[in-house]
Amino acid sequence: MAKVADKYLKVDPWAIIEDGFDPERNRTSESIFSLGNEYMGVRGYAEEGYSGDSLPGSYFNGLNEQMDVGNHYKGIIRSLRYMVNAVDWLYTRISVDGEQLDLAHSKVSHYTRRLDFRTGTYRREFIWHLADGKQLKIGFTRLVSMTMSHLGLQQITFEPLNFSGSAEVCTGLDFNMIHEERGQSMWKQLRSGEVGNVTAILGSTLTTGNKLFSGFMLQSSQPLNTELVEHDRFIGRKFSLELSQGAPASFTKLVVNATDSSAARTGDSLWLEGMELAAAASQLDEQEVFADQASYWSNIWTTSDIVIKGDPENQQGIRFCIFQLYQTYHGDHPGYNIGAKGLTGEAYRGLAFWDTESYCLPFYMFNNPKAARSLLEFRYKTLPEAMQRGKDVDCEGAFYPIATIDGTESCDLWQHSNLQLHVGTAVSYGIWHYVKNTGDREFLYSKGAEMLIQISRFYATRGQWGQRSGEYGYFGVMGPDEFQLMVNNNCYINLMAKKLFEFTLETIAEMKVKVPEEYTAVAARTQLRNEELADWDNKREHMKIPLDTDSGIYEEHDGFFDMPHIDIHSIPVTEFPLYSNWSYDRLYRYDMIKQPDVLMFMFLYNGQFSREAKLANYEYYESRCIHESSLSPSIHSILASEIGKHEEAYNFFEFATRLDLDNYNRNTREGLHTTSIAAAWMNIVYGFGGMRSDGPQLSFHPALPQKWTSYSFQVMYEGVLLGIIVNKDSVSFRAINGGSTEVMIYGQPVKVDAAGTTLPLGEGMMA
Amino acid sequence: MAKVADKYLKVDPWAIIEDGFDPERNRTSESIFSLGNEYMGVRGYAEEGYSGDSLPGSYFNGLNEQMDVGNHYKGIIRSLRYMVNAVDWLYTRISVDGEQLDLAHSKVSHYTRRLDFRTGTYRREFIWHLADGKQLKIGFTRLVSMTMSHLGLQQITFEPLNFSGSAEVCTGLDFNMIHEERGQSMWKQLRSGEVGNVTAILGSTLTTGNKLFSGFMLQSSQPLNTELVEHDRFIGRKFSLELSQGAPASFTKLVVNATDSSAARTGDSLWLEGMELAAAASQLDEQEVFADQASYWSNIWTTSDIVIKGDPENQQGIRFCIFQLYQTYHGDHPGYNIGAKGLTGEAYRGLAFWDTESYCLPFYMFNNPKAARSLLEFRYKTLPEAMQRGKDVDCEGAFYPIATIDGTESCDLWQHSNLQLHVGTAVSYGIWHYVKNTGDREFLYSKGAEMLIQISRFYATRGQWGQRSGEYGYFGVMGPDEFQLMVNNNCYINLMAKKLFEFTLETIAEMKVKVPEEYTAVAARTQLRNEELADWDNKREHMKIPLDTDSGIYEEHDGFFDMPHIDIHSIPVTEFPLYSNWSYDRLYRYDMIKQPDVLMFMFLYNGQFSREAKLANYEYYESRCIHESSLSPSIHSILASEIGKHEEAYNFFEFATRLDLDNYNRNTREGLHTTSIAAAWMNIVYGFGGMRSDGPQLSFHPALPQKWTSYSFQVMYEGVLLGIIVNKDSVSFRAINGGSTEVMIYGQPVKVDAAGTTLPLGEGMMA
Repeated sequence: MAKVADKYLKVDPWAIIEDGFDPERNRTSESIFSLGNEYMGVRGYAEEGYSGDSLPGSYFNGLNEQMDVGNHYKGIIRSLRYMVNAVDWLYTRISVDGEQLDLAHSKVSHYTRRLDFRTGTYRREFIWHLADGKQLKIGFTRLVSMTMSHLGLQQITFEPLNFSGSAEVCTGLDFNMIHEERGQSMWKQLRSGEVGNVTAILGSTLTTGNKLFSGFMLQSSQPLNTELVEHDRFIGRKFSLELSQGAPASFTKLVVNATDSSAARTGDSLWLEGMELAAAASQLDEQEVFADQASYWSNIWTTSDIVIKGDPENQQGIRFCIFQLYQTYHGDHPGYNIGAKGLTGEAYRGLAFWDTESYCLPFYMFNNPKAARSLLEFRYKTLPEAMQRGKDVDCEGAFYPIATIDGTESCDLWQHSNLQLHVGTAVSYGIWHYVKNTGDREFLYSKGAEMLIQISRFYATRGQWGQRSGEYGYFGVMGPDEFQLMVNNNCYINLMAKKLFEFTLETIAEMKVKVPEEYTAVAARTQLRNEELADWDNKREHMKIPLDTDSGIYEEHDGFFDMPHIDIHSIPVTEFPLYSNWSYDRLYRYDMIKQPDVLMFMFLYNGQFSREAKLANYEYYESRCIHESSLSPSIHSILASEIGKHEEAYNFFEFATRLDLDNYNRNTREGLHTTSIAAAWMNIVYGFGGMRSDGPQLSFHPALPQKWTSYSFQVMYEGVLLGIIVNKDSVSFRAINGGSTEVMIYGQPVKVDAAGTTLPLGEGMMA
Repeated sequence: MAKVADKYLKVDPWAIIEDGFDPERNRTSESIFSLGNEYMGVRGYAEEGYSGDSLPGSYFNGLNEQMDVGNHYKGIIRSLRYMVNAVDWLYTRISVDGEQLDLAHSKVSHYTRRLDFRTGTYRREFIWHLADGKQLKIGFTRLVSMTMSHLGLQQITFEPLNFSGSAEVCTGLDFNMIHEERGQSMWKQLRSGEVGNVTAILGSTLTTGNKLFSGFMLQSSQPLNTELVEHDRFIGRKFSLELSQGAPASFTKLVVNATDSSAARTGDSLWLEGMELAAAASQLDEQEVFADQASYWSNIWTTSDIVIKGDPENQQGIRFCIFQLYQTYHGDHPGYNIGAKGLTGEAYRGLAFWDTESYCLPFYMFNNPKAARSLLEFRYKTLPEAMQRGKDVDCEGAFYPIATIDGTESCDLWQHSNLQLHVGTAVSYGIWHYVKNTGDREFLYSKGAEMLIQISRFYATRGQWGQRSGEYGYFGVMGPDEFQLMVNNNCYINLMAKKLFEFTLETIAEMKVKVPEEYTAVAARTQLRNEELADWDNKREHMKIPLDTDSGIYEEHDGFFDMPHIDIHSIPVTEFPLYSNWSYDRLYRYDMIKQPDVLMFMFLYNGQFSREAKLANYEYYESRCIHESSLSPSIHSILASEIGKHEEAYNFFEFATRLDLDNYNRNTREGLHTTSIAAAWMNIVYGFGGMRSDGPQLSFHPALPQKWTSYSFQVMYEGVLLGIIVNKDSVSFRAINGGSTEVMIYGQPVKVDAAGTTLPLGEGMMA
């Protein structure tokens, strides 16, 4: 892996700090200093306007626009949806003595910015040296509220260092934000105006009719005499702020945003809702909002912190990961999903992939089970779209899209959208994994079963029987390894489909006995036929699982073992990423893989494979993997830990927590690798902590990286918050908030309660 | 094959005749009544203007425009070239008493049109019933000269049936022709004006700077008082024509067109050339031009006619094929190629595929060897573009494009353009086949060898070694069967590449001995290294040819035998064409093939496979072939003949000669299936005539379709024009123009001379 850290930011256990302004790194910092609360997200751009290179981005979960893609083949999408850049609710312009503040031109010193994990705020400050010698210290603080989804707060402070005078300010709400891929704003203004102390605007996306209300109220350290400013797609207020040397002045803008992604909703109805929310928010004062936010984060760090001693960089890194994961999603809005970049940039168009169920779900399951369920609700809510997509490709049942924002397929590369079948099995795995670890059978029976039936239907109609083998499998597919474009019997897909059928049939059998009425209901709703059950059982039984029995190595797909070999270490570093430097077709004709495929199912169904099988397959596939996916190294690290390759495990972990902070992939400017961030959490908990959640009981095989003094992490399991501390010579487990539960530690069942249990660190578990 | 004839046109041995005007069939007829002379082509549209559904198309070989295609992957094209709709040199508008002629609105009777194979003219006539009761018989005759490439002629006759009066005419040259795919004219006007009796205009394509001069001169049965008419991209003349009852009036427009597809040429230089050509053409009178054209076609029918007795429909059909083949190409312009639709429509964008070498070349080799060589010259001329394309896909040597107009790849589906490697082997086969049958070693040594070396280089760098098999082959390819999208070791490609290496090495060995100086020159020009020869020999020797030795069936590609089976006869007729009605990805996951692949190489290298092998493979693959290519049935017919399935052979032949006349594929409206037309010729000569040209000597196994009384055909071989007549009980061979040569007939060598030889019809050769 030709990845090198770009060390730049200050190391701090509880914050991200950038000292000095580097225009070259501006977009990267904008990504890193993003704020979000699952409902909305905003990049760390300069709200006062910046004429240099920048990607001002303000996004709202689910708000989307549509784009036509040229295609005339049946079953391939003709248009796609993407997360649309929305209102700049931080819009502010500041001038003093006619000179406008713009970091691209203004002279500044003492520039610093800070993202604080404990207060959940982003603050930027610097001294502005005006042409006439005046020096003005300015600070910008913002937050998006974790408890009040609609609420954003912006506070700007002014401290004149060597003069008294005034500043001219215009602050407002701007729908003229350019969606960079489209080169224009994708909004039209429906309404704007002032009602009481609320200044508001309502916009609609150009083609999809998604709507967004934005309104703001100003508070200040001094009485403000404001004047309304309106022009196309913009509303704001301008005013003079008196500046007295020695007496800081400030103003605070409380903003309420309210979205509706259904074209059916009238603008007037959303306008009323927005105004009500604004009226309620008007009652808040800024200190209340800051305190509420700090309190929220304090609770999070109590339940979800990971403490690493002896490694300040990874300490900062993992807290950044946890911070961003909660910002991206915490389950207040069932039916939202997690885009590959969260709400931090346009890249991947805000679309959610299988990453949600395969990489993100465990973090939420073991920290915030409500959020985990909410994520699964997204798939239930979008079952109708998946059913339609199944029909579009001449199949029955639900074909979950490889990339989506609203449930429809939005991947415009047909190879991926038509051949990558594995999202459906990721969803069924997610349901299985979630129910197993949370015991939430209510979800399984009420919604999960219906999804399982429709997903099984799809896999029973998309698959085919091999003419020679007589076995069932999937022809013309692309597995998780996107370097094998169109293959037959991808082992991962076949195995996952087998497991899907198994789980569906088990669920049905269980429901027949335990909740017969609910079974009857779901069977009726899905028009389930008995012969389908027999069919799924038959296909499950005869599913082809390509395996070389001599070596114990699973064949990634039919013919993979004959694929021409390439020594991946012989590829010059300058040729990476291969996507950019190799002829597109060339990527697909080697035994070189992009990311774990066989190893992925060995991770997901870890308990079903022997250590020997994992060792053999790890050694075979790891040596062929170029990790051209940010999701790849963590899975390798976890398996390396398990088979005792501790040093290798640590090497793969090296860029997990700081992938974006150190900009390893040189593309953090486009947005954060949000779903990879979830893999970093797994890397510690499943990797070094050796946790396994796919067996009958939660189990642990903790190890300690040699570079670390100790580390601790928490998981919520069966209602008990387990705290695990791993030292150089011991591991201890404790039920932090009381209660007790039994887990397996180093293969032995151990009852963990508030008193806790301490065991010696497992033999050979340190490297 | 769900193909049904749409019988509509009158059957006539020497013409295509349509009686009555059917607006629904107008585009189809426009294609069928196309004229061309290899330099230019014009669809049979109504030159007087027609406001109904029509595709007015005027094309010039090699003139192209450029279109960007959205793509950002390396090795995939970013723009493509297409044949551009050009000047309407037939433009004419006619009105009488203020009423304008337009078949969409005018009342007409006695409408008929006729394409005459012996005169090489297209004539349309009808009686126009004006609103005021006047009846005017109008006739439109046109030709494009087969001997004077630049020359077109349009003659319009007026015969007032019940009145005397006058007609207002405007005739000219119009660059406002809409290119239908782009929805606009792709031309700008560079210059226009009148010089002497020549009225002319010069246009340039918008982005590629291709240039076209068009000029005309008028002749008439009466003195014309004309007035110049000019507007944007148009120049013409208007005049009144006196009409006297009982005295037909007419005028003739001689048009000279001159093209230049190099952007470098100045417009003024082409203007001068055009004016010189126009001055020369001014010396011609219309009768001279008609006589010259008839004389040309008389010669063609002497050397190239096929006579079928007892089957008037196929008699008409095969003459239409031969007529269109000569119209499309006859070798006056080395470096031109044959688009899939010739010069008869926009479909396939005027691009040439492998059809040229695989399907068209034999017709020209055995009728007009000069034309065959000219076609191969196209590939030599475009060798630099193929070399660049090889580099683009990270290989060495020449990668000939799957679709091209100017030598650059112009296929915008990467699957086809990057995976379909077989054009290069078709070129090398074409060289081999041409040299074998014409003895033109001068071409082989001067140009062929250089192409062979560069093509071999490509196949030696694009291929790879199978890791398990230890054999060489091509991974990630699509063979001729476009229903198997991305496979490994396509048997056709592997076998053709093996033959390519073999022929290249033989040619080099031969040149070293026979023409050492030329060898030294080509080796220097190509910087040929000795180790390359060893490498090619090694790859040739270890080329993987997938074959089931028990059954003798070649496996189309690795894993094909395990592909899920589908009974192609179980597919409802309403689902054809599958491309339109099946999800795109579904096409690719059955043992269903689109067109011959294994059978294709058994046809090309016919002599190298036993009858048993052909029988076994025919029975296996024919039953899996859905013929969703117009090139498919003829190859099956030829092989069916060979293995004694005479009835099946005839059934496949049924729509060969009349594919367009009876609009079997329901898309003749887009243009003629020009390259399939060449396959129809092969179907008779190679199929029923049993000719084989891949062995050491030309051979024949004539058979007679039961429905026919007799048939005859001619082939030019070793400078001798052989005439072959097949009757119900005998076959006779004669050297029509004298000379003698030896061929194999029913497996025996026979010397054929002017006296001729008659043998009994082979046993079992009638069905």
